[in-house]
Amino acid sequence: MTSWTLAAAAAAAALVCCGPAAAQFKNSDDAIEYRQGALAVMGHHFGLVGAMADGKVPFDARAAQANADLVVTLAKLPWSAFVEGSDKGDTNARPEIWSWPDKFKAAAQRLQDASVKLAAAARTGKPDELRTAFGATADTCKSCHDDFRKKH
Amino acid sequence: MTSWTLAAAAAAAALVCCGPAAAQFKNSDDAIEYRQGALAVMGHHFGLVGAMADGKVPFDARAAQANADLVVTLAKLPWSAFVEGSDKGDTNARPEIWSWPDKFKAAAQRLQDASVKLAAAARTGKPDELRTAFGATADTCKSCHDDFRKKH
Repeated sequence: MTSWTLAAAAAAAALVCCGPAAAQFKNSDDAIEYRQGALAVMGHHFGLVGAMADGKVPFDARAAQANADLVVTLAKLPWSAFVEGSDKGDTNARPEIWSWPDKFKAAAQRLQDASVKLAAAARTGKPDELRTAFGATADTCKSCHDDFRKKH
Repeated sequence: MTSWTLAAAAAAAALVCCGPAAAQFKNSDDAIEYRQGALAVMGHHFGLVGAMADGKVPFDARAAQANADLVVTLAKLPWSAFVEGSDKGDTNARPEIWSWPDKFKAAAQRLQDASVKLAAAARTGKPDELRTAFGATADTCKSCHDDFRKKH
């Protein structure tokens, strides 16, 4: 990748995303590994909140808060890694991510907003509020996957 | 996996690790994906701090802090995913992780302690302090990899 291409990719990433820790990647594979890693770790902690929200494991306010806080932190990360050219490779990303950047950005923002509400719900210590906020957050995942993730 | 095995795996995980958001995994592959994801994301943000510490990119105190804070958060996560049985599969984890659990736990703690100092150094806004703390943190990565990661 030339310096110019790298700069263009960074500019594209900045368009899609960002946050205080804007990411820079060596190449597409590196970006794909990063965003898949962030999504996997986020999904795991989101699942732990969900197990409590669904009553599959006993409600534990401290654990709910810790896991929801991790979801908030991780939900900020993947988006800067959808750099130009990273629709190729070991990825389920659909080309619409790059052809509809505003829609993708809005979807990413909905998750981030919902996760902040999820963490606030966890802080109430009320399982009903956690359940509602978990469902709303899960809806943002599903909606984004429907539009932007390849079907299996 | 039976309930008993799951309980045993959870107990083993608790021995190796933890933190407020103790992880629970469906199976070994899930645990491996999680810990590799957490390490990849942490490594990425650590690398961004390193690029500044080494003068490869201009020093930016805000970005250094944001990236170092992410390293602190992520450095807490992988250890609970080294559950019993997850030495098999798509992993570079060496069996010594399970045969020397105290040594592995101490190595994981050294990274976490060093990353807290890295974040403190980032807050000083002094590139020299960041460089020193980055080197100390990188030493904890190398030391742990030397003992517990398979060579390629």
